Amino acid sequence: MTPSVTAKNIPRGFSFSSAACGLKKSGLDLGLLVSETPAVAAAMFTRNQVVAAPVLASQVHLRQSRNRMRGIIVNSGNANCCTGSGGVAAAAATTLKVARELDKLHPTQILVCSTGVIGLPLRVEKILNAVPELVRARSGKAKAFTQFTRAIMTTDTRPKWAAANCRIGDKTVRVLGCCKGAGMIQPNMATMLAFLATDAAISSPLLSQALRGAVAGTFNAITVDGDTSTNDTVAILANGKSGARRIVSANSDFKTFYTALENVCRTLALKIVEDGEGAQRVIEIEVRGAPSDRAAAQIARTIANSPLVKTALAGADPNWGRILAAAGRAGVPFDFKLVDIKLAGILVCRRGGEYPFSENVAHKKMLAKYVPIVLDMHSGKGTARMWTCDFTGEYVNINASYRT
Amino acid sequence: MTPSVTAKNIPRGFSFSSAACGLKKSGLDLGLLVSETPAVAAAMFTRNQVVAAPVLASQVHLRQSRNRMRGIIVNSGNANCCTGSGGVAAAAATTLKVARELDKLHPTQILVCSTGVIGLPLRVEKILNAVPELVRARSGKAKAFTQFTRAIMTTDTRPKWAAANCRIGDKTVRVLGCCKGAGMIQPNMATMLAFLATDAAISSPLLSQALRGAVAGTFNAITVDGDTSTNDTVAILANGKSGARRIVSANSDFKTFYTALENVCRTLALKIVEDGEGAQRVIEIEVRGAPSDRAAAQIARTIANSPLVKTALAGADPNWGRILAAAGRAGVPFDFKLVDIKLAGILVCRRGGEYPFSENVAHKKMLAKYVPIVLDMHSGKGTARMWTCDFTGEYVNINASYRT
Repeated sequence: MTPSVTAKNIPRGFSFSSAACGLKKSGLDLGLLVSETPAVAAAMFTRNQVVAAPVLASQVHLRQSRNRMRGIIVNSGNANCCTGSGGVAAAAATTLKVARELDKLHPTQILVCSTGVIGLPLRVEKILNAVPELVRARSGKAKAFTQFTRAIMTTDTRPKWAAANCRIGDKTVRVLGCCKGAGMIQPNMATMLAFLATDAAISSPLLSQALRGAVAGTFNAITVDGDTSTNDTVAILANGKSGARRIVSANSDFKTFYTALENVCRTLALKIVEDGEGAQRVIEIEVRGAPSDRAAAQIARTIANSPLVKTALAGADPNWGRILAAAGRAGVPFDFKLVDIKLAGILVCRRGGEYPFSENVAHKKMLAKYVPIVLDMHSGKGTARMWTCDFTGEYVNINASYRT
Repeated sequence: MTPSVTAKNIPRGFSFSSAACGLKKSGLDLGLLVSETPAVAAAMFTRNQVVAAPVLASQVHLRQSRNRMRGIIVNSGNANCCTGSGGVAAAAATTLKVARELDKLHPTQILVCSTGVIGLPLRVEKILNAVPELVRARSGKAKAFTQFTRAIMTTDTRPKWAAANCRIGDKTVRVLGCCKGAGMIQPNMATMLAFLATDAAISSPLLSQALRGAVAGTFNAITVDGDTSTNDTVAILANGKSGARRIVSANSDFKTFYTALENVCRTLALKIVEDGEGAQRVIEIEVRGAPSDRAAAQIARTIANSPLVKTALAGADPNWGRILAAAGRAGVPFDFKLVDIKLAGILVCRRGGEYPFSENVAHKKMLAKYVPIVLDMHSGKGTARMWTCDFTGEYVNINASYRT
């Protein structure tokens, strides 16, 4: 289990609150993240052609406020997607209400996110009624953040957060993040919902650059079921309240901050895979020696989404033939007679054929919580790494009965 | 249930036999299909980069014998894939043995197919020992064909066959086919194993053309799990024994024959989906009004392979939002606010938003054996049709424990 968040993890000048407004049958379903002073923001969103109303609203707000933001309001229990003009109006009304209650701000200083069922009208009055108390009750205490991480959950079995502190000059800079997501996970240039807060002082272009870089090898390198969400959003607010000097060029301060941010993103991304619907174990797929990095990524992703590979992993079955067969349909030409495969540290396939190994030993090693798979294609210098989870009957149970 | 095959379905001049040679723990695992006189052959094979030894052998034989073939030998229980030079030698030894026993033929007149586990050495001596009796026992009786359809099964729960007769001039021409396949099904320019026999007289180029055409909208339009096999093969032998006039141009005789062939292929393809591992129902996905046929096919295929769509279908859940979200990640730009969706005949989504419908009525209709989904994109004239099955816990059970 992750240890509890503590005061030293909370970036200065941020506050959080949450409420049970009735969108879910029970439990917290509304969260607010506020920077007490204007913060620089950066965000990435789903590339799905079907885009939820709050994603469109947040994109417009970032443009109109030139990436200067004060807060993020998030509801779970309803995705506000495929909800027509009513959905657009609901997202607008939500940001307007938060902006007014908070500080008579302009609504474009608020980002809005939703997650839950697609296609059901959002009963926005439930959110609007809850906003005044939500704004009033916000707090910079660790417990308020912990409640926020719970308020954004849907089929997640546990809240997911990560933190890293770094030193810039003689000051401590804090990076704190949380995310939700367990199914409909194959982020494409974004993720499910992930929120990051930092008291670093950084220019808007460099914050965007840092976020894009950190997301590429973390949130964009995981998959649970290959289904890209309509609501994927990762957003970061940086308010400069650490007092550390401002990062305005890609210097060593930037690198220090970037490393902290990427660590937080990687931890969060792996937590999504760990909590993948029905998952028993995390699978790391590393492809080496491919014709290019792009080819390596295509092969890694195809293996990571293969139902036959993922069900074999559920059974801890060292069925390397399915791994190689999935690689073979990735749309990348290669000579399979050169490929070596290591499964849970054991060489099982050499030059495209079986390498003698103990099925029993391999089976036992594959029962672990974390199983690495390494393919060496011996066809170039391309590499890629993806994380996925196994595919169990429980995934089917969860998703065959999601709405019933 | 399909009625039993009868004498009138068996093309003239063909014979079949089968044996239990010990590759499977029990039951038939070796089948032989013979044309008693030289036949014109056509075949299509997997596009997977990882190709089984028998596929390579069959491709070479077709070239070397200029598409004149006498028979097909098939084993189940072992895919003879990723088996190195031993696997290549095993495929060669098998065709050599069959050719000699049959009629002192050249081995290139024999096609060879394998299906089963990937990566385990094939104990070819079991096959070689069984061949003499296999050749001796062949028969043109319906029962021999029925046994053959059983001998090629792996995780299939039932044999799959289809037949169509047509008239060319004053003669009856028979087209008979059988296939196997339940998992690792997303044929790409080919299918799992499908064998077709006809007593039509037809030129080699026209037989190839007919097969390519018939496969496109049948075997290449189905998916169970999106995993393309390493052994996919569909092969047809045409021996001219009906006595009907020879088809040498794309005339009305060709169309008559083509229709019969396509009907047989469609019936076989749908039987694979019906018998998809763990499947409760067949889903027909029709995409209309897409920017192009190619775009329509990409959208239909993405929906057909979406774990979230397929698990919702297992629960007979009219969760149209998942269908639209899957379409949105197909890599095809479109305006989702134009899309209408019909599920089991009920309009559930109009212009990208919910259309009021009874969840209860929809749920009951979706419990049927056959559930049609129609997406009208209202963005062009492209159409496509795909067939898939629902995704149940039983699929996971079968594939998590396949080898244990």
